[in-house]
Amino acid sequence: MEDIKTPSQSFTTVTDMVLPSETNPLNNLFGGELLARMDRAASIAARRHCRRIVVTASVNHVAFNRMVPLGSVVTIEAQVSRAFTSSMEVYMDVWVEDRESGNRTKANEAIYSFVAVDDTGRPVKVPELHPETEDEKKRYDGALRRKQLSLVLAGKMKAKDATELKALFE
Amino acid sequence: MEDIKTPSQSFTTVTDMVLPSETNPLNNLFGGELLARMDRAASIAARRHCRRIVVTASVNHVAFNRMVPLGSVVTIEAQVSRAFTSSMEVYMDVWVEDRESGNRTKANEAIYSFVAVDDTGRPVKVPELHPETEDEKKRYDGALRRKQLSLVLAGKMKAKDATELKALFE
Amino acid sequence: MEDIKTPSQSFTTVTDMVLPSETNPLNNLFGGELLARMDRAASIAARRHCRRIVVTASVNHVAFNRMVPLGSVVTIEAQVSRAFTSSMEVYMDVWVEDRESGNRTKANEAIYSFVAVDDTGRPVKVPELHPETEDEKKRYDGALRRKQLSLVLAGKMKAKDATELKALFE
Amino acid sequence: MEDIKTPSQSFTTVTDMVLPSETNPLNNLFGGELLARMDRAASIAARRHCRRIVVTASVNHVAFNRMVPLGSVVTIEAQVSRAFTSSMEVYMDVWVEDRESGNRTKANEAIYSFVAVDDTGRPVKVPELHPETEDEKKRYDGALRRKQLSLVLAGKMKAKDATELKALFE
Amino acid sequence: MEDIKTPSQSFTTVTDMVLPSETNPLNNLFGGELLARMDRAASIAARRHCRRIVVTASVNHVAFNRMVPLGSVVTIEAQVSRAFTSSMEVYMDVWVEDRESGNRTKANEAIYSFVAVDDTGRPVKVPELHPETEDEKKRYDGALRRKQLSLVLAGKMKAKDATELKALFE
Amino acid sequence: MEDIKTPSQSFTTVTDMVLPSETNPLNNLFGGELLARMDRAASIAARRHCRRIVVTASVNHVAFNRMVPLGSVVTIEAQVSRAFTSSMEVYMDVWVEDRESGNRTKANEAIYSFVAVDDTGRPVKVPELHPETEDEKKRYDGALRRKQLSLVLAGKMKAKDATELKALFE
Repeated sequence: MEDIKTPSQSFTTVTDMVLPSETNPLNNLFGGELLARMDRAASIAARRHCRRIVVTASVNHVAFNRMVPLGSVVTIEAQVSRAFTSSMEVYMDVWVEDRESGNRTKANEAIYSFVAVDDTGRPVKVPELHPETEDEKKRYDGALRRKQLSLVLAGKMKAKDATELKALFE
Repeated sequence: MEDIKTPSQSFTTVTDMVLPSETNPLNNLFGGELLARMDRAASIAARRHCRRIVVTASVNHVAFNRMVPLGSVVTIEAQVSRAFTSSMEVYMDVWVEDRESGNRTKANEAIYSFVAVDDTGRPVKVPELHPETEDEKKRYDGALRRKQLSLVLAGKMKAKDATELKALFE
Repeated sequence: MEDIKTPSQSFTTVTDMVLPSETNPLNNLFGGELLARMDRAASIAARRHCRRIVVTASVNHVAFNRMVPLGSVVTIEAQVSRAFTSSMEVYMDVWVEDRESGNRTKANEAIYSFVAVDDTGRPVKVPELHPETEDEKKRYDGALRRKQLSLVLAGKMKAKDATELKALFE
Repeated sequence: MEDIKTPSQSFTTVTDMVLPSETNPLNNLFGGELLARMDRAASIAARRHCRRIVVTASVNHVAFNRMVPLGSVVTIEAQVSRAFTSSMEVYMDVWVEDRESGNRTKANEAIYSFVAVDDTGRPVKVPELHPETEDEKKRYDGALRRKQLSLVLAGKMKAKDATELKALFE
Repeated sequence: MEDIKTPSQSFTTVTDMVLPSETNPLNNLFGGELLARMDRAASIAARRHCRRIVVTASVNHVAFNRMVPLGSVVTIEAQVSRAFTSSMEVYMDVWVEDRESGNRTKANEAIYSFVAVDDTGRPVKVPELHPETEDEKKRYDGALRRKQLSLVLAGKMKAKDATELKALFE
Repeated sequence: MEDIKTPSQSFTTVTDMVLPSETNPLNNLFGGELLARMDRAASIAARRHCRRIVVTASVNHVAFNRMVPLGSVVTIEAQVSRAFTSSMEVYMDVWVEDRESGNRTKANEAIYSFVAVDDTGRPVKVPELHPETEDEKKRYDGALRRKQLSLVLAGKMKAKDATELKALFE
């Protein structure tokens, strides 16, 4: 049926180099530049899931664990991890590739949410997501906790009603 | 004494317009572009606090509650909200200004963290922060909870040891 | 009354860093890049005064007295200094901030003029400006001389009729 | 002899289109974008005259008389109009070309000054300029008046000592 | 008559500097950046020939024989070399200028083709081209061979029917 | 052995959207912008093959058969198709994706060549390429003909000595 999709159907790869104009005084990629690239990659994944105009709804906690030096090749892999009524969570893995050895190291993970809208900006329904692999299932399950966390942080849900999230602290 | 600063000493205002090249198909500012602008504003505030090179350490949860239309004037106000050993939390308020009425509406809030480093990229100590107003104190207190949340999400602290955070759920 | 405004109502602050892609072979900010940033800051100030679309009408003499090195924080403060029928003069102070000491030095001053227009590009009336501080009054008075100078340089006024300007040379 | 050059030896032509990302809400080229393009064209002309690193010293009065619509072809013609000890005045004519008729209209004139410097930023001597055509001679003569005007506006010369300039008002 | 033009009527000069943000790790201009600049220059030449909207149809073989170092002045000279029914071949010479000696060296030649279209994107007839100088005639003659080569490479003409081209190999 | 690689080891995917600032008056992607994006994608593939700095050596004939509209998702897939002593041919397929149906259409193919260099810009040896699939073998074989064509067009080989190429015309 048309209205169920798998994560692999939205899988998106964006590969690019780190240019001098995108680096800070230590010659590493600016955090802000990486945030912008991830937004572009994630929005393409969300669009592939729902085939609609999508707008960024939120950025989950992003940690910059590893510096990305000038001249690196950076690969962002994005995939829808869960679909709600009209919103989608997109999970990204960011890889940095060493030129000489060719080794790929994970630089960080990030999670963005998008809402599908029609041409007037009104939310529309999106297809369901059906996770297949073990990793996809784990990310799918975590998405509900993260959604509750968003609502609590935005003051739209009481912490004590966030049952999934609360379980973490017990 | 040199090593204590107030939030107002790092207060930073960045005002700019939304240009056609920064908008999505609905003629609103791209989420990724706003994330990058906020990173620039926040890093200036962090630098004003510590007078060192600063690098983005993490982005706290950011919600895009309000669309920012083409031609708007966007103002980002950034201020250090708490200093830890070598890291600083920066709190931002983002305002959108209507051209005709001149009214300012809050588009969203965002919190980024930065680490101060020396020229070789090694973390250095930063001045303490002493909050003054009621708002500054509230944000200062919340920063500890947010730091614990970061550590829990990154798997560097057990949820049950995050005492400040845990209190929220009880 | 609606149609009189003070300079502080159009006060605009634009803070940004000097990035590698904006510097000349001596690692200082390109003059052209600063001219473009000042145009953006000044046009926001003009727009805040009249709440209309504004277009750049002229750039007064601008001197680049002080080089602005890579990595500096540059702050442009713009404010309407006088309003004529449908045009506004905007006065700007440009500050450069030393990262280590935190000291602010004035890099230069600049004056741009803007015309308020309707959606078809036709000039419209703008509110009057009422200067309050001593500095604002001095700049307000100078604006007339500068307007005469513009008209003389453009061949639209005879030098001998520019009474305000002529007084300078006597 | 090496140390005398003619204006045609520094003649520089920069032709480009007006793209959507460079236009204001009326679909005309931003004033700031034109100022930046003129800085690039003029600095190439100054460099061709002296074969040194050049830095922008000042922008003379620039009037934007004619809007430059999206999709236009804009041609900037720049030429050194006078050389002083280590500075050069560059005179520019800006032309806009109508796509359908192919007609060229002058959009505006502008005058920038540059200083030649060595690798440490210290001013160095530049070749003299020897004007040849009638137009070149007229611009050469005017340059002295403009230099005096700069000095008066910068408070570095008393208006009553600016003999060339003063003559205008008598 | 209106419908015949000479190559000099479409002659276009684009002069610009190589900035830090446009260079590779060896501090030379990126090939891709030069390809994009040549596309802009060539499309202006094609537009000057036909006074219509033009779209890039193909890029002929381009060899990057000479590196273009950071800080160089690059001049692209473009001119229509032959017109077919609704397409035009544009021939470009790219020059690099040494700052100290002022010497110009040819960096490379390139050939692009454009199609003239109406507002709906449909091809329209373009004026004929009448070459005047020896060089212009040589390039005019070569254009037919190159057109056959394009058609052969695109699989739209059999190699054995490309009579002009075939002659090269006999 | 280290010095033989397969095409799949250099496979590179670059996915991105077409933004308003990259489109011509018909709202399609500029040819020059696509040429620049392809240069970036191809240079990453070449670098993955040889793990060295690479510089663009030439662009083979590129035909723009299909317009790429504003808002499209464009995917460039690049892969080394043959390695010579110190140069590599990279073959690219460019796909455009329709948002509503999700269908992918091939927009064009392109072939670029790169040279591997050391830090001083001198050519260095690259690993051999061993094609595996039928398509890879066909592209590998064609590469020699294309290399001869390059040499003939550059006047570095006589047409009659280009045996592989000549066979095409007999």
